[in-house]
Amino acid sequence: MSQRRQLSLNFFVYPGGHHEAAWRYKGTDISRLNDIAYYQDLAKRAEAATIDSLFFADGPVLADNIRYAARYRVEPITWLAAIGAVTSHIGLIATASTTYNEPYNLARLFASLDHLSGGRAGWNIVTTSQAAASQNFGLAEHPVHAERYERSREFVEVVTKLWDSWEDEAVVADQASGLFADTARIHPIEHVGKHFRVKGALNAPRTPQGRPVYVQAGSSEDGRSFAAHYAEAIFTAHQTLGSAQAFYADIKARASALGRRPEHIKVLPGLSPFIGSTEAEAKALEDEFNELIQPEYSLHQLLRMTGIDLSGYDLDGPFPRHLLDIDGTIGAASRFQLIVGILDRENPTIRQLINRLAGGRGHFVLAGTPERIADEIQQWFENGAADGFNIMPPWLTGGFDAFADEVVPLLRRRSLFRTEYRGRTLRDHYGLPRPDSRFAGDHLRASA
Amino acid sequence: MSQRRQLSLNFFVYPGGHHEAAWRYKGTDISRLNDIAYYQDLAKRAEAATIDSLFFADGPVLADNIRYAARYRVEPITWLAAIGAVTSHIGLIATASTTYNEPYNLARLFASLDHLSGGRAGWNIVTTSQAAASQNFGLAEHPVHAERYERSREFVEVVTKLWDSWEDEAVVADQASGLFADTARIHPIEHVGKHFRVKGALNAPRTPQGRPVYVQAGSSEDGRSFAAHYAEAIFTAHQTLGSAQAFYADIKARASALGRRPEHIKVLPGLSPFIGSTEAEAKALEDEFNELIQPEYSLHQLLRMTGIDLSGYDLDGPFPRHLLDIDGTIGAASRFQLIVGILDRENPTIRQLINRLAGGRGHFVLAGTPERIADEIQQWFENGAADGFNIMPPWLTGGFDAFADEVVPLLRRRSLFRTEYRGRTLRDHYGLPRPDSRFAGDHLRASA
Repeated sequence: MSQRRQLSLNFFVYPGGHHEAAWRYKGTDISRLNDIAYYQDLAKRAEAATIDSLFFADGPVLADNIRYAARYRVEPITWLAAIGAVTSHIGLIATASTTYNEPYNLARLFASLDHLSGGRAGWNIVTTSQAAASQNFGLAEHPVHAERYERSREFVEVVTKLWDSWEDEAVVADQASGLFADTARIHPIEHVGKHFRVKGALNAPRTPQGRPVYVQAGSSEDGRSFAAHYAEAIFTAHQTLGSAQAFYADIKARASALGRRPEHIKVLPGLSPFIGSTEAEAKALEDEFNELIQPEYSLHQLLRMTGIDLSGYDLDGPFPRHLLDIDGTIGAASRFQLIVGILDRENPTIRQLINRLAGGRGHFVLAGTPERIADEIQQWFENGAADGFNIMPPWLTGGFDAFADEVVPLLRRRSLFRTEYRGRTLRDHYGLPRPDSRFAGDHLRASA
Repeated sequence: MSQRRQLSLNFFVYPGGHHEAAWRYKGTDISRLNDIAYYQDLAKRAEAATIDSLFFADGPVLADNIRYAARYRVEPITWLAAIGAVTSHIGLIATASTTYNEPYNLARLFASLDHLSGGRAGWNIVTTSQAAASQNFGLAEHPVHAERYERSREFVEVVTKLWDSWEDEAVVADQASGLFADTARIHPIEHVGKHFRVKGALNAPRTPQGRPVYVQAGSSEDGRSFAAHYAEAIFTAHQTLGSAQAFYADIKARASALGRRPEHIKVLPGLSPFIGSTEAEAKALEDEFNELIQPEYSLHQLLRMTGIDLSGYDLDGPFPRHLLDIDGTIGAASRFQLIVGILDRENPTIRQLINRLAGGRGHFVLAGTPERIADEIQQWFENGAADGFNIMPPWLTGGFDAFADEVVPLLRRRSLFRTEYRGRTLRDHYGLPRPDSRFAGDHLRASA
């Protein structure tokens, strides 16, 4: 009897929590944001709840609104290495940029994370959207979207070849004969492309997962095309079931058209839950957070997402829709479209829009009882909108604890979510196969 | 009463051990070379012996003699992050290249290692000597020595500014007022140089040590000049007390001339000890390793260090000195000079030279009783040749255990080495001050 299809649940870790004012909340332990033990404790709790993976965002530039919020960045690969050392099962997904790294270096970092964690590494592949990053790397300007994606595709090809460059059987380690490695099974990749020339091979053996899991989060046209080719898990932002269903159907169709099995791409929308024992209590909790919002910060966020500077406007007045540059560059971005959707459906004041976005920067924020949260998860999961969710607690650690303690048991009772891990690797948790090296058998063909 | 000057002892970790045939030795657990727990166990043993620091070498290219030896590379920064998670005091020194990284990325990785370890990070700054590395990074050719050092100096300046870019007091985190960071204390570095343009600031707060410890290992003229300016610990290779004394005096004089305090640069020669309960037993142990040598591998190493291909020569015949290109590029390298010194003093056969180099690639190999090893350490330490040593066990784990169990107690009994850690950071262990941010007070000056 085949097992019922299972949810994938990731825990998206943000210092302090996802609500933009989380660090000001009385329940947030602000003194521990740089303390690895704080994150290690969170990871252990998530592992006790059989969560699939921890996920850290990243970008190689300082946020320009650090005055108002704890928006600095711990470096996620090192951070997850230290978390992997005190956990045994939970996946470890780090974000890293294809625009501001070299493929040989990044291939090594993720291969190492996969080795040291026993096969739990995942790479959230980003092209870096913040233009200011270019100024930390000597570029005259930030490459435009299409250029970044072009480089990204070649980058992923190079990294994949490097991860494959040692066949699984390359290490012989025969002490008696003195043969350490079978060099016929170690392959210089000899990559020559538009952006990269990389001879290879990698300087370490193939990893437990063969290749760390490929994760992606772009929802633009370029992003979807990229995801359909390469991604094994997709993080995405939707405000409505309908929007998520359309995205889900599109991604699965694109992958199928490329000959991929649709179940090998997990679509995981973001979900930020405010949990209360009654609907009113949950809503009151969300309100408590929104009262801590600093409009200077929120308006800056809105400027980034819409291109419109609303400082000076009456926060309780209408959003000036006529300023939206629907046909401009920013108008093509998925987050811009998401805001247009909110304006269309809800016609909010500026303050109402700010509050709508404060919880998850455009991700789905849901205030409700544990049953209500579980119902929504089940509805999306069973109606072609999601293979699981990227859980974004409004604050830490309490916001995660409430989900783990009150929602996870309901999902288990409904047989939607595991009660124990069935494997040890992130590929195991996601139900993804371990890929063969693309070079496997080359030495036999060469000598045939 | 001031404490007696204390030795610094690092543990230089090489997969399997430092002798080139270590992986073939019956006491080496070859199956665990990729197992983080193996290195974590070693780190715990070293910490129990109050060793100052673990040190990992690195290079972004596969060794071309992997057929014969376990010469692959674990990525050291991630590896040390996972080791830091299960230790509390021992320093964590990773090697990283200034030729094949971007300063913003590397500044982040080491800052993160320093944060997550509570102030135990050190950076062994290298320019990468293996020419083949260039082919993994799209370069037409490997930059020559002087160019690499020029870039390296600017690289270190940029990284230092980034580590200083958040003053220690920059994070305010006042939940009531909503002020997270005092942006007057976060400084864009605005670096514009020949090799780099980096605006900054770093995207994370200043680290426990302010700056991770600067380590360096070059002994060429460029290397010494660099070390005198920047290094706080120097790894170096010497075969004789006299050679080490000359190097020590030169480095300390150069540092003094630059206005630095000589005790703030630790000179740490490499030492690979074969330990036996009698001199004969120790020598027999060394012989046992040398019998496992594969000449194909050794001759390749010799080719790298001397530029001479000796395959086809009678191993028991004399070394063909007339082939040495004393005036050539390679003749300027410190390792070349070291081999010339051995030839001058010992006039060895090719096989004898191979055996001399197999233990430590030119570092000092000493076979003897624990007393003999301790005497040599004390002699160098008390006669202007060393502030401590970089211990390079011939094999692991037994080669380290013998040193920790038999030599360390002697050094303690002689009051040369600590019996417990007196601080928690690597700077504490080395007796180095915690540097102020170079930007400290700038906001006061600006408003004055």
